[in-house]
Amino acid sequence: MSDRVNPQRLRGFRDFLPESMALRKYVIRTFEEIFERYGFLPLETPSLEYAETFEGKSSTEAETLMYKFVDAGGRRVGLRYDLTVPLARVVGMHPDIPMPFKRYHIAPVWRAERPQKGRYREFWQCDVDIVGSDEPAADAEILAIISDCLSAVGFKEYRVLINHRKILSAMARVAGASPEQAVHVYRAIDRLSKVGADGVRQELIQLGLSPDSSDRLIDLINIEGDADTVLFHLERLLADQPEGIQAINELRSILNLLSNYNVNLNSYLIQPSLARGLDYYTGAVFETVVDEPKVGSVTGGGRYDELVGMFAGKKIPTVGTSLGLERIIDVLEELGLMTPPRVSADVFVTVFDTSCIASSIQIAANLRRKGIKTELYLGKPGSLRKQLTYASRLGIPWVIIAGPDELANNEVTLRDMQSGEQKRLPLHELPEHIKSLWS
Amino acid sequence: MSDRVNPQRLRGFRDFLPESMALRKYVIRTFEEIFERYGFLPLETPSLEYAETFEGKSSTEAETLMYKFVDAGGRRVGLRYDLTVPLARVVGMHPDIPMPFKRYHIAPVWRAERPQKGRYREFWQCDVDIVGSDEPAADAEILAIISDCLSAVGFKEYRVLINHRKILSAMARVAGASPEQAVHVYRAIDRLSKVGADGVRQELIQLGLSPDSSDRLIDLINIEGDADTVLFHLERLLADQPEGIQAINELRSILNLLSNYNVNLNSYLIQPSLARGLDYYTGAVFETVVDEPKVGSVTGGGRYDELVGMFAGKKIPTVGTSLGLERIIDVLEELGLMTPPRVSADVFVTVFDTSCIASSIQIAANLRRKGIKTELYLGKPGSLRKQLTYASRLGIPWVIIAGPDELANNEVTLRDMQSGEQKRLPLHELPEHIKSLWS
Repeated sequence: MSDRVNPQRLRGFRDFLPESMALRKYVIRTFEEIFERYGFLPLETPSLEYAETFEGKSSTEAETLMYKFVDAGGRRVGLRYDLTVPLARVVGMHPDIPMPFKRYHIAPVWRAERPQKGRYREFWQCDVDIVGSDEPAADAEILAIISDCLSAVGFKEYRVLINHRKILSAMARVAGASPEQAVHVYRAIDRLSKVGADGVRQELIQLGLSPDSSDRLIDLINIEGDADTVLFHLERLLADQPEGIQAINELRSILNLLSNYNVNLNSYLIQPSLARGLDYYTGAVFETVVDEPKVGSVTGGGRYDELVGMFAGKKIPTVGTSLGLERIIDVLEELGLMTPPRVSADVFVTVFDTSCIASSIQIAANLRRKGIKTELYLGKPGSLRKQLTYASRLGIPWVIIAGPDELANNEVTLRDMQSGEQKRLPLHELPEHIKSLWS
Repeated sequence: MSDRVNPQRLRGFRDFLPESMALRKYVIRTFEEIFERYGFLPLETPSLEYAETFEGKSSTEAETLMYKFVDAGGRRVGLRYDLTVPLARVVGMHPDIPMPFKRYHIAPVWRAERPQKGRYREFWQCDVDIVGSDEPAADAEILAIISDCLSAVGFKEYRVLINHRKILSAMARVAGASPEQAVHVYRAIDRLSKVGADGVRQELIQLGLSPDSSDRLIDLINIEGDADTVLFHLERLLADQPEGIQAINELRSILNLLSNYNVNLNSYLIQPSLARGLDYYTGAVFETVVDEPKVGSVTGGGRYDELVGMFAGKKIPTVGTSLGLERIIDVLEELGLMTPPRVSADVFVTVFDTSCIASSIQIAANLRRKGIKTELYLGKPGSLRKQLTYASRLGIPWVIIAGPDELANNEVTLRDMQSGEQKRLPLHELPEHIKSLWS
């Protein structure tokens, strides 16, 4: 074939071969199970929507990174850049959904990012949101599920950082920033962990804040300690900011409710510099970070009381979070936190020669009917050695050999691929025997 | 909010609300389980690829219906219109994959079709393919899995129609069609079930075939009966076509091997008019149809020995099939073949008032830890009636009431939502009691 096509894949997009699918599927199934145990219901929406649906919904870069184009019918369309805006659209189109509406959605989203470690152009989000409740209990439920999910897949060291948009705005006011400056101030202090206190201070002064005000802000975002300690200090420093005090009390309620879940409260910290970009958040915001490997936040979320209402024509308070599948898997793989389940079949049935193939098929069909994951050799029959090599490359632990000699006695040979040991078994005992190998 | 955004969804794209997700998830999980029981391994590929990757691979309309655009980096890209071309690309990029490579892939594909019943612009394919085997045993394995999948989700009446590309070409030659005419002849006879024998005859004559030749062709495609009967007659009519005879024998081998699987052979029929469009098929082709409802074929596939090799630079014989998730679900729903599993939580925990919320959370957290799907009321506490209405709208069968009275005695009230019966239970007996309600 002279006209070979050179196979190429787009940068920032990935193939997942069977070995890496094992861990992916395991993490997705674990999250799904936990989401359902919390009473979240599945929802799916199209990958492609009117571009307009996504425009003006998120002030973050997500929107500027949208894959947009004009379709063959002349419609301006875009691949979804998140699962939150589609949720808002669905709620807007179905005013009859019982509220609070708790939905989960595990699916890919697309952003034309510059590809780098932990940043892909196609990546999966695992979202849970509670639509139609402004109760702190809803925030607490979201914070609890983050911890349950991460623990379930093997995370040990992680910190759920929490802040509140109204603490941020109170801090900006205390530092003397004008409402116009505030947004830039949030952006600057959000970079604390990246550029350090001196770096933030420089940026604040460049924004026009006085050195004095900048120092006051740095003091605020630098408060350290457990959640109670940080809230205590914040309360003192924001004493003349009623909205800020209200936000502090809201976070206290949320943490207080959270203490009734089976979670480790020490994983939850108040981080006054946390801004979560310039998203649609209106209340509590949170993200989860790990020290190693450096992949950015593995979850992000918060309360957004305005977005859903944009489509519904009324205020619909909502809180939720997104778990980043790729980054979570990167962490699991790099730290070796999880032995992925074996993806290959449990047992391999060889084909001795063309005259024996019917028997091999019958053996395989019978094992499969008993629920045993069974691979049947489908290449050219013959060469047992070649078939054993193939089974071994697939990582299948047990091999069944059924030649004329075995079949004449209604038997098979079962080979343990690890030890190389072989033994003869009556055919009718095979399914139970194989099942017993795992119990 | 005066600036309400009108929520709109693109035509041909769909939202799946929780009720319809139940059946979707059930079907997908069932197929996945069967695919894995057959030893197929999961593979995932990007939604977006270089448009070039898809161009010139399929001569069907799929390619002309591709969503194509130029991305921000100036690359010509396209949303995948099937899962087969990406498989070929992956195999081309990984020459080290052990062969035969049996992979499954369940994912959405996109085609800018005219939306109509059973035809969507975003739809899910469930693909199984065996790459690197030209053995009839591979074709038989694919035919067996079709039947296993459809039976497992409740299909009763369906027919797997089988033909062979080389029977088609032999028939065209027998009818005196030139090699240039052949493709148009296939297209014409493929429409037998739509336009009837007279319709096909007219089309053949318009293509330039003599009335005599057209009649001979109609005779060939009109053969009826079980697989053996049809192959017997075909063999007689194509006696002077060595390639046709070889194809007939190949189908006989496949059906013979298939008889060793636990499948109902009567569901498999030879249909000489079946062409499966003008796809990349080179050998056996097959599709599954049902009489009611009219949704077109629910599976389609066949042997394609050239496509994978286009990326690998060498011939890699492959056989596979695609199960159409949407159409299969349409059939299940319309025929009521399947009671979808309940999607809602098993039990609902009410919140009596703000003072009792901690206890309600603890009860819910404890049930969830025991694996019970538990919904906790997250709206404004108070009004038991409102909470019961909400639980009932969600379809949750059991409700737990934990007021000050119950809690003072370490008890709860359990309400059967169907009968309205209530009974008091000690708190510590709750998880076991709830589990016993299902066993």
